[in-house]
Amino acid sequence: MSNIAYIPGDGIGEEVTRQGLKVLNYFNDKHDLGLKFEKFDLGAERYLRTGEIMPDGVLNKLETFDAIYLGAVGDPRVEPGLLEKGILLKLRFYFDQYINLRPIKLYKEEFSPLKGKGVKDINFTVVRENTEGIYAGIGGFLKKDTPDEVATQEMISTRKGVDRIIKYAFDYAQKYGRKPKLTVCDKSNVLTYAHNLWQRAFKEMGENYPDVAKEHYLVDAITMKMVRNPEIFDVIVTCNIFGDIITDLGAEIQGGMGMAVSGNINPDSISMFEPVHGSAPDIAGQNIANPLAAVLAAAMMLQQLDYPDLAQKTEAAVVDALSKNMITGDIGGDLSTDEVGDYLVQSIKTNE
Amino acid sequence: MSNIAYIPGDGIGEEVTRQGLKVLNYFNDKHDLGLKFEKFDLGAERYLRTGEIMPDGVLNKLETFDAIYLGAVGDPRVEPGLLEKGILLKLRFYFDQYINLRPIKLYKEEFSPLKGKGVKDINFTVVRENTEGIYAGIGGFLKKDTPDEVATQEMISTRKGVDRIIKYAFDYAQKYGRKPKLTVCDKSNVLTYAHNLWQRAFKEMGENYPDVAKEHYLVDAITMKMVRNPEIFDVIVTCNIFGDIITDLGAEIQGGMGMAVSGNINPDSISMFEPVHGSAPDIAGQNIANPLAAVLAAAMMLQQLDYPDLAQKTEAAVVDALSKNMITGDIGGDLSTDEVGDYLVQSIKTNE
Ligand SMILES: CC(C)[C@H](C(=O)O)[C@@H](O)C(=O)O
Ligand SMILES: CC(C)[C@H](C(=O)O)[C@@H](O)C(=O)O
Repeated sequence: MSNIAYIPGDGIGEEVTRQGLKVLNYFNDKHDLGLKFEKFDLGAERYLRTGEIMPDGVLNKLETFDAIYLGAVGDPRVEPGLLEKGILLKLRFYFDQYINLRPIKLYKEEFSPLKGKGVKDINFTVVRENTEGIYAGIGGFLKKDTPDEVATQEMISTRKGVDRIIKYAFDYAQKYGRKPKLTVCDKSNVLTYAHNLWQRAFKEMGENYPDVAKEHYLVDAITMKMVRNPEIFDVIVTCNIFGDIITDLGAEIQGGMGMAVSGNINPDSISMFEPVHGSAPDIAGQNIANPLAAVLAAAMMLQQLDYPDLAQKTEAAVVDALSKNMITGDIGGDLSTDEVGDYLVQSIKTNE
Repeated sequence: MSNIAYIPGDGIGEEVTRQGLKVLNYFNDKHDLGLKFEKFDLGAERYLRTGEIMPDGVLNKLETFDAIYLGAVGDPRVEPGLLEKGILLKLRFYFDQYINLRPIKLYKEEFSPLKGKGVKDINFTVVRENTEGIYAGIGGFLKKDTPDEVATQEMISTRKGVDRIIKYAFDYAQKYGRKPKLTVCDKSNVLTYAHNLWQRAFKEMGENYPDVAKEHYLVDAITMKMVRNPEIFDVIVTCNIFGDIITDLGAEIQGGMGMAVSGNINPDSISMFEPVHGSAPDIAGQNIANPLAAVLAAAMMLQQLDYPDLAQKTEAAVVDALSKNMITGDIGGDLSTDEVGDYLVQSIKTNE
């Protein structure tokens, strides 16, 4: 029994999540999961129609749900950042979704831009802090619009906030890690306050996990390692902004946005699952957008709702579709968005 | 007539810069440049011996020089960050070296970890702001070492500081750019104060450069583009921390630290040139370290001292050494550090 808020959003958001819903509905019927979906009209269209981005009433209503399944927000007619901040960041902060979980997993060798790296080399998870750091939104201007202008932006790390994400990452490594190893990524040699706290928190928390190997990389060095030796990573934990950067780099080495998934998780409240890609207005409505990231986001939601076997079956169907080339044109196939979704359901049925 | 302060530093710093000095000394004699070198004892050895990192007397003395040629600092026996902050960052800030110039140039196709990218695809320059942003060193702790601890770290952008780096980058693109195009990299959709200033500064400065194409990338998106389509870039301008991150990623796609160079430039004061790699204590003193980055740093110094033809000849010698495999083991040759330096001088002599 779970109530799922469904926010298709803008552009291709609707058509790709529709494929995720096909899979979810199939499981719902077959296994009597009792999933209920309610659609929320949020995004550029609503904003342009009514001026509303995230009305309070909507937030209150969302509180009664168990999870959010989101497509994409963003539209060229809307000032950049407005919807991302007003919807995506708003929901992350409001529901205190302090974990941003981003698996970096290459499904097909030819998708990666890296030489000589296969599917077993690119397979790790980034656990990104999702509610503080330089995303706090705190700062200001002095003497704005004069030659003497000064602008500030505050990076704030709290011990509680850093402890909980590091604890989650250690637990995650312990449960799902392959080695297991947890790498902390920071810039502690320069950010001698905010990331000194990170260093201490990591070291102290690590004492509770003698069975998890520990490693430290500076953020600049980790980007090098990610393209040269991604195989060394298992689980990485990092702050909000560095997580933002390295997960996009990770998305690219795993084959680009078409495959990248993001879970915004609060284990005690409402989590939100989304493909990393944007609304891609240029190809919206043409039934050609790649739905695999949206379907993998649905799989991550199933995992979080405590159906790990169904999550696993969904991922297996994606792997199957890739191996048989039952995919969209952007990644080398010739199916439509809808056909990929249908194939995935078929594949699950056949293998269940 | 130029006085050059020579800081070999730690580990392999001395042996690699010695090869740069061979080239500089050759030009000095041949063309009567009047370069004078004075060696400064700074780094881990001095710190461990005397407890001094950067005595005031040294800073005063350095002020009388025209440029600094630096090897590397860092030693496992010294607390991480101490020497980097006490020497590298100290000099950058003291001499207001507000430009960090980092060419990203692939010299040999097989060096790059990227599939299908050749030397003409990876050839751009990052202009990194080098004296402000989150490197300001400002911040603090509240309730340190308690569960309620809060740590802050301030990102500060001044209009003057941002204007001058953007102006330098536009001038640089105009003079050396291939298209020319200048890309600004920021996170303006989240850093709505500090990077809003960047956006306005970029837009307004750009009006003076109608002949330079302008482009904007968010920092997360640019890392993707750098590994998927590096050929689209010409000159990139960015803030201190994002410059730190993307130039390391750039160093890797151009073939790793063995080739990466960093100029810390103040056009009106004393600039400092260094290979990007560290002191590599594990291979120090064995005459096997790759000196090419140190030699290319010497070339960049020659450029800044207004000997562009000699800079060009030095780079041509590096290209020649690479094509004849007269290089060290780390990049596929079998020469010693010293032999590479000798070969480079020989190559310059032959071609002059
Ligand atoms: C859209 C933007 C605000 C967001 C972020 O910076 O977190 C995005 O890049 C992401 O990673 O989910
Ligand atoms: C050593 C460190 C302080 C420095 C920096 O962060 O700027 C280095 O990474 C660099 O890029 O030159």
